[in-house]
Amino acid sequence: MAKRTSLQSAECPVARSLDAIGDWWSLLIVRDAFDGIRRFGEFQRNLGMAKNILSARLRTLVTHGIFDLVPASDGSAYQEYVLTEKGKGLFPLIIGLRQWGEAFFYEEGEAHSRVVDREQGQPVRTLELRAEDGRLLGPEDCVRVAAE
Amino acid sequence: MAKRTSLQSAECPVARSLDAIGDWWSLLIVRDAFDGIRRFGEFQRNLGMAKNILSARLRTLVTHGIFDLVPASDGSAYQEYVLTEKGKGLFPLIIGLRQWGEAFFYEEGEAHSRVVDREQGQPVRTLELRAEDGRLLGPEDCVRVAAE
Repeated sequence: MAKRTSLQSAECPVARSLDAIGDWWSLLIVRDAFDGIRRFGEFQRNLGMAKNILSARLRTLVTHGIFDLVPASDGSAYQEYVLTEKGKGLFPLIIGLRQWGEAFFYEEGEAHSRVVDREQGQPVRTLELRAEDGRLLGPEDCVRVAAE
Repeated sequence: MAKRTSLQSAECPVARSLDAIGDWWSLLIVRDAFDGIRRFGEFQRNLGMAKNILSARLRTLVTHGIFDLVPASDGSAYQEYVLTEKGKGLFPLIIGLRQWGEAFFYEEGEAHSRVVDREQGQPVRTLELRAEDGRLLGPEDCVRVAAE
């Protein structure tokens, strides 16, 4: 797909984010990183992606400051891809994609992976958007205002 | 980009969602719909997208059940694209993209559009992921468990 440079300078944060993420496969790489995957070979096995394509995606994610490339934690010669703070900031987005998928793309009773609270082992709640005073907000309760 | 049919049958809801959304432009169309845009010409002006491409994207979004195509609300001959329940379910995702962009892609003081609570006019809070018992959860507090 042609590079859309117009999005980089957009005054809409949605557009600028989309430009940085670049394509969907990148979010699957980030998803795997949240599951604890750090090495090229593990990403490759998990995603079944061609090595040259995975390599290009990871390079772009490092360039965009989503991953840091660091020496392996076990002292071996490997390098590892570790999510930066910016990368960890994608967590609500991955959860949002997951919950939308769970709600609309599975038959009743159809098996799918789940995200649970590590402490209690219970499924997490649906993402909540709240007003400053704590009220739960839906799409109709929100309005976008242009940059000043 | 080649169609990746493998994602459709994925047991991971993140992957299945990504497959349905298809590409980033589709999310910008959905973003505009949350801002109240309903007609082809309005989407086209707002996004500056070639008509044939916008037309193909909208058709895909209708096929995936994200938009319904309905007669214009003012009784004119126009047709309008209205978000379905499934389409409205993308709201947390659009907000997540926006908030990630706001946090990491703008300089201090750089102007960008904002989403405010319609009732109070105040900026909305950052999306919150909570455990069943109400605790706020970050990436480290969550674990993905495979389908059973």
